[in-house]
Amino acid sequence: MRDLPQLLDLIASFSKENPFPASPSELYLPCDYILTLGGKRLRPALVLMGHELFKDNVESALPVAWAVELFHNFSLMHDDIMDAAPLRRGQATVHHKWNTTTAILSGDVLLIFAYRFLAQFEVASTVPQLIQIFNRVATEVCEGQQFDLNFETQATVSIPAYLKMIELKTAVLLGAALEMGAVCANASIEEAQHLYEFGRLAGVAFQIQDDLLDTYGDPAKFGKQVGGDILQNKKTLLVLKTLETAPEVDCNELRAWMQTNAQNPEEKVAAVRAIFDRNGIPALVAAEKERFQKAAFQHLDAVQVPEARKAVLRQTVADLLERDS
Amino acid sequence: MRDLPQLLDLIASFSKENPFPASPSELYLPCDYILTLGGKRLRPALVLMGHELFKDNVESALPVAWAVELFHNFSLMHDDIMDAAPLRRGQATVHHKWNTTTAILSGDVLLIFAYRFLAQFEVASTVPQLIQIFNRVATEVCEGQQFDLNFETQATVSIPAYLKMIELKTAVLLGAALEMGAVCANASIEEAQHLYEFGRLAGVAFQIQDDLLDTYGDPAKFGKQVGGDILQNKKTLLVLKTLETAPEVDCNELRAWMQTNAQNPEEKVAAVRAIFDRNGIPALVAAEKERFQKAAFQHLDAVQVPEARKAVLRQTVADLLERDS
Repeated sequence: MRDLPQLLDLIASFSKENPFPASPSELYLPCDYILTLGGKRLRPALVLMGHELFKDNVESALPVAWAVELFHNFSLMHDDIMDAAPLRRGQATVHHKWNTTTAILSGDVLLIFAYRFLAQFEVASTVPQLIQIFNRVATEVCEGQQFDLNFETQATVSIPAYLKMIELKTAVLLGAALEMGAVCANASIEEAQHLYEFGRLAGVAFQIQDDLLDTYGDPAKFGKQVGGDILQNKKTLLVLKTLETAPEVDCNELRAWMQTNAQNPEEKVAAVRAIFDRNGIPALVAAEKERFQKAAFQHLDAVQVPEARKAVLRQTVADLLERDS
Repeated sequence: MRDLPQLLDLIASFSKENPFPASPSELYLPCDYILTLGGKRLRPALVLMGHELFKDNVESALPVAWAVELFHNFSLMHDDIMDAAPLRRGQATVHHKWNTTTAILSGDVLLIFAYRFLAQFEVASTVPQLIQIFNRVATEVCEGQQFDLNFETQATVSIPAYLKMIELKTAVLLGAALEMGAVCANASIEEAQHLYEFGRLAGVAFQIQDDLLDTYGDPAKFGKQVGGDILQNKKTLLVLKTLETAPEVDCNELRAWMQTNAQNPEEKVAAVRAIFDRNGIPALVAAEKERFQKAAFQHLDAVQVPEARKAVLRQTVADLLERDS
């Protein structure tokens, strides 16, 4: 069994051995750029872990793992345009460093290259199944992004709609990464499905934790500005839980803060956090996270392989869900 | 053998039987919109014609034909953003009718749906080959668009570089449509290759004709403003041939016109056209078109099927290349 650093080494070697074409450089340099911005490469690692639960020849799943990483970066490149984000991992986004045209076209070619690598999987008869999973999840990620965009202008968002959005936008790709790894290793449909559910539910837990950390993370460890969601008036699970459970006076105060652009950012973050605190919202949201996390690991437990084969995957996902930054 | 209207009817029925999902409507309505803007649906028809050269059960190729049409419309939706085009076929482009975010995300999902339909081809063992052809040509179309964008700011463009650009941006998709149709009908690699070359070379001829018509088309028949390329200072084959063959004084006059935004559009179009005319440029460009057209039909002639099976394809492409609007 390989540990996480060993799997990440395999992915790094594969990417070096499979560079983008040199020309036209205007198209491919931005692809190189975003792929070397220092992402954690969690998704391709999940493909390899999903494979290694069942079989040792994990190298054979590398093209599929790389396809998932390219897809993820395609979606980041296009989402950053839509969100008008100037920075990604502390560096200029592609549409800021170059321009929107470049970020559209380089994103398009990243998506197409994802399919190229997917089609390179050595067992040709498995490729249609991989493509089918990939198409399903790629569609869902676009739908999730659309729901997220819709929420910005919607007056009310229900908690189930919010959970569905984060599931589509983020969680299903984690599930599908594991599922595709299992399919590459010729696992049964049932085992592949358990892994999909494990990744999907852990992905929702991960996103809920992201909402918590954005407001309650340790500023010394959290990469971004703590309170960023509050300052952007984002309808996070903290906000939605407040509107669902808090007394009308607190709901009104929260709505008032969300309709103002803060003159004094620290004052706004402190005031909104105080509303959350006096209504016990962090504990409610943490309980929601726990619920998804517990359900996730039940699916990992149900996979019929020796516990030793699950160790790396179990530890990696547990570490992710315990992170405080 | 089915004629072109019959093939187009099949495509129209298939599209009605395979609508986009209803939700999220913000994502899928723009897809419906662009697909019903009244495109000629030449590319999906070419898939069916490529199939029908070899086999009668042309319905089986419909998912592949529709995939090609979706891909084409994905590229139009994104190109229109990059070109800041307000109109497409006389109607508002998606990014004008909605916004850039919508045109990016709906374009993305169109591309993903293209792969979905491609993977639906009934012979699963053929799907990897179809995906491979599709990936190759999709990459080339992005590269062609990038070269086209590069040319806008490049001081000089060689004629071979220009021909390569129109080949990548437009012609290879026509070739690949025919090739994929042939592959669906289980044609030999050699036959599929002849059809690819036929479509590719005819596609280049078609684009050269487009350059001619933009300046010399009949205003009563030409859908767009005649002289549009001149007013946009586009480096068409007419311009490049002039710079290659005309005396220095004419080249300088042409360059001067191309560096000015016309105060009087009619004067500019007339002046540039006069430069082309006194240097015999239309005839040179028409000869170039003829050269590609002749080479194209040699590949159709080489396909070893009865002439009767080629009749619809031969006539359709001949009509396209004789069109004067």
